[in-house]
Amino acid sequence: MSQQYSSALLENAVNEFAKLPGIGRKTALRLVLHLLRQEEEEVENFGNTIIRLRKEIKYCRVCHNISDREICSLCEDTSRDDKVICVVENIKEVMVVENTHQFKGRYHVLGGVISPMDGIGPADLEIDSLVSRVASGEIKEVILALSATMEGDTTNFYIYRKLAPYNVNISIIARGVSVGDELEYTDEVTLGRSIVNRIPFNETFKN
Amino acid sequence: MSQQYSSALLENAVNEFAKLPGIGRKTALRLVLHLLRQEEEEVENFGNTIIRLRKEIKYCRVCHNISDREICSLCEDTSRDDKVICVVENIKEVMVVENTHQFKGRYHVLGGVISPMDGIGPADLEIDSLVSRVASGEIKEVILALSATMEGDTTNFYIYRKLAPYNVNISIIARGVSVGDELEYTDEVTLGRSIVNRIPFNETFKN
Repeated sequence: MSQQYSSALLENAVNEFAKLPGIGRKTALRLVLHLLRQEEEEVENFGNTIIRLRKEIKYCRVCHNISDREICSLCEDTSRDDKVICVVENIKEVMVVENTHQFKGRYHVLGGVISPMDGIGPADLEIDSLVSRVASGEIKEVILALSATMEGDTTNFYIYRKLAPYNVNISIIARGVSVGDELEYTDEVTLGRSIVNRIPFNETFKN
Repeated sequence: MSQQYSSALLENAVNEFAKLPGIGRKTALRLVLHLLRQEEEEVENFGNTIIRLRKEIKYCRVCHNISDREICSLCEDTSRDDKVICVVENIKEVMVVENTHQFKGRYHVLGGVISPMDGIGPADLEIDSLVSRVASGEIKEVILALSATMEGDTTNFYIYRKLAPYNVNISIIARGVSVGDELEYTDEVTLGRSIVNRIPFNETFKN
């Protein structure tokens, strides 16, 4: 649907919103018309918050997570376990793992996974800095928590090889039947993996 | 899902996006992470466009449509018919009617419809200015193009009464079966109205 806007200001704002992922021109127009109905001060605040975000955001020097300071709050938190590092793809996955409340160690954000199709090689990721952290000798375990895709698996194996010279346990998060899923509808590969990686039933009482 | 953000800047930006209609916190986070991956200049442009929109936008002195100037482009366009006014609820409906390419007259934006439930009375709408435009004597026809709701009907009748003293034709857009709809699934009221308001078949050849 081509729209005739009677205002260039309106058109510019719609264009900007329509650049966002998952926002079409119709939704963009709806959002812009909503903003027009808000107080000027509120809209100014909205715009400035976005500008400040991009301008002032930092990435933690240690784990590369998003942060307001040089070192992020997760790396600074003295109550967390220094000996375990959970390796994740992006800052989004830090939040996802944090929301499980099952991990109280440190993180390491790779910034992606190895994906030759997208031209992303090991050098584009924060793998060297992970090796440096492990080389410091404090780390006892590295948990690989990447996506269960071919790219994730490739990256897991690459990191595994890079860390082989060091005295560190490397583990990988379990792949298996999703909690709540019916076996009938679980794909064969996942089901097969969950059988191979079965654990003693009494261990499930622990959590 | 409660989220733990390691950055106040991130949290503020997510909060701002989540205020928009139809945008939840998950979508807000997705949009904010997208902005973080863009160039600083682009994000600054996005923020400033929004701020400028709200600050500099004007409403046309004649028809109350959104505009960058005192008089909107639709009111200034000398190729349009000065003798017909299409009355609509909001600026969105101006665009909707414009997109039909079936109307080449002027507009009048009421700014809503009479809705006692929402505390909106005739005085809150641009009805007096519509009467003034009609009173000027140039207008031959006023087309009421409001929503086919109770509030729309109330407003139509109110305007009809207000314009009664003037020598002007008042028409209302047709209510009937939507183009493409199957009769089987059309509601009775609409179908009934479309029978009552049937038109000579040969008139349909005109368009």
